[in-house]
Amino acid sequence: MSFFAIGVDLGGTNLRIAAVDQNGNQLETITTSTEVKRGRDSVIRDMCRDIKTLQQKYESQYHFAGTGIGVPGIIDLETGTVRESPNLPDWQDFPVREEIERCLGARVFLENDANVAALGEQWLGAGKDFNSMCMLTLGTGVGGGIVLNQRIWHGMTGMAGELGHMTVDPNGPPCGCGGRGCLEQYASATAIKRMSLEAISAGSAPELGRAMNANPEFSAKFVFQMSINGDAAAQQIFRTVGWALGIILADVVNAFNLPVYVIGGGVAAAWEAFAPAMLSELELRSFVFRATQSASSRRKTLITRALLGSDAGLIGAAYLPIQAQET
Amino acid sequence: MSFFAIGVDLGGTNLRIAAVDQNGNQLETITTSTEVKRGRDSVIRDMCRDIKTLQQKYESQYHFAGTGIGVPGIIDLETGTVRESPNLPDWQDFPVREEIERCLGARVFLENDANVAALGEQWLGAGKDFNSMCMLTLGTGVGGGIVLNQRIWHGMTGMAGELGHMTVDPNGPPCGCGGRGCLEQYASATAIKRMSLEAISAGSAPELGRAMNANPEFSAKFVFQMSINGDAAAQQIFRTVGWALGIILADVVNAFNLPVYVIGGGVAAAWEAFAPAMLSELELRSFVFRATQSASSRRKTLITRALLGSDAGLIGAAYLPIQAQET
Repeated sequence: MSFFAIGVDLGGTNLRIAAVDQNGNQLETITTSTEVKRGRDSVIRDMCRDIKTLQQKYESQYHFAGTGIGVPGIIDLETGTVRESPNLPDWQDFPVREEIERCLGARVFLENDANVAALGEQWLGAGKDFNSMCMLTLGTGVGGGIVLNQRIWHGMTGMAGELGHMTVDPNGPPCGCGGRGCLEQYASATAIKRMSLEAISAGSAPELGRAMNANPEFSAKFVFQMSINGDAAAQQIFRTVGWALGIILADVVNAFNLPVYVIGGGVAAAWEAFAPAMLSELELRSFVFRATQSASSRRKTLITRALLGSDAGLIGAAYLPIQAQET
Repeated sequence: MSFFAIGVDLGGTNLRIAAVDQNGNQLETITTSTEVKRGRDSVIRDMCRDIKTLQQKYESQYHFAGTGIGVPGIIDLETGTVRESPNLPDWQDFPVREEIERCLGARVFLENDANVAALGEQWLGAGKDFNSMCMLTLGTGVGGGIVLNQRIWHGMTGMAGELGHMTVDPNGPPCGCGGRGCLEQYASATAIKRMSLEAISAGSAPELGRAMNANPEFSAKFVFQMSINGDAAAQQIFRTVGWALGIILADVVNAFNLPVYVIGGGVAAAWEAFAPAMLSELELRSFVFRATQSASSRRKTLITRALLGSDAGLIGAAYLPIQAQET
């Protein structure tokens, strides 16, 4: 009898719960909105109910490996506590693993959402031909995940991989983390919107300004569309995104020397707009990267887009219990 | 019968070769100057002669585990080639491992010098109570080494740990690596000298200017002495050293979440002059660091000075073959 597991992607907006078999096929996926307003107890109760429903439905056909849950925010793995979560404000210092385990009556694997996305891409996506990889998830914020020898690198307390808060420019815009000029301030959807508003205020982006006035749903996606249409100000914003990504990739390549770096999240859809600046900045700043690209190097460093889209986290979360069974 | 190994620290100035027992005791150490001018063939011939002398002397009492060699520069571990070495200019693209093995008639462990220093500190020094650690070696340049689960983290081609070339300020001084504003441009002895000359030229360091005129051997150590004596310009330079170290430590803490970060090399002697700025910048920029320092965290991140001084590399090089025997 083969395995299946439950993967949960607990986002600030959507809650997705999937039954996934050991080959990564999604047997069934339940998508609901995360009722953040109704409080964490309600979110956990609804989530556990859906987990149990899926578990009962498939455990006659498959051996149940367990449940993995990806949560946005900083998680202390030792205590199973959410230390900080901008998208789930009332979860701060909340012993979420214990509460879920009590509600389910079973052990679960709790993990940061960017870490499970990286694991998902390593299992079945852009990293599947490599044992180690790094992933940057460019969304509302910027998340990071590092997989070394097929395992998420947790570090001492489970907080490793916070690549969105590495410093691009020490005098750059202030960041919610307490720093300044973090990658998240240049390469997230939020940053793209902020940079657009700054350019409009400065009078250097007249087309963006007109578009914003005409469109109340002005978003990073919209700025990308303007960039494709040839708007110079929008193109400059994506060059800044690429510049910042290139600096941090150079840092990470110099520190880790991994075979593959994967860029995912919604902003990755604008790859063609930011990738040229990203790659040229990386090439300029990392002699480790250049050494691996040289003709005499037997192994090349690969910089590539994610393949699993928004399923990466769900798949990676489900893989946590499957991976534990495999070893 | 217990083990011994030969460790080699091949510097640009000195060549040190030690017989080290499995407990890390130096049985005997040969120190000569590296005759770089006479060319790499001559350096390798002399080195192999001394290795053989030590090996023969101790192999009646101990089982010989092998030879480990720390080399300054970027090493491609797969090919055993020095890709770049500022201190050993004619070694570029030289198949050094093959040449040494031919000369010795035996396999050797070749490793970057900052990596063996990190391994030495992890084995017997500041990292000995931890399985994983990161070390920054502040010397003429800035080297880095990362030890994960008691092994040097090599990455794909052996070039991981180049933390001296992570970016502090993307618009900072140009670096020999092709980048700008690398840590090495702020926290090396060379950088301290450069920043002193810049301050003197700008007219903001009159005491340093007088001292430099009086002392042809003007060095980073001298600037540190001036800082201890209360010279404001010298103190400011070390605050810049600390600021840059704090930014990069914050990056590395956010990425790796390791239990201990060790600062070594000659410049680490100026710890009291740069550490306050380093720690406050780290505290400001890394929420992972802050989370581990909070009262509710069971494990604290430790930032500390190296303990083995200039022996770290020698000890770490010898540990490579000992570690291989142990497993």
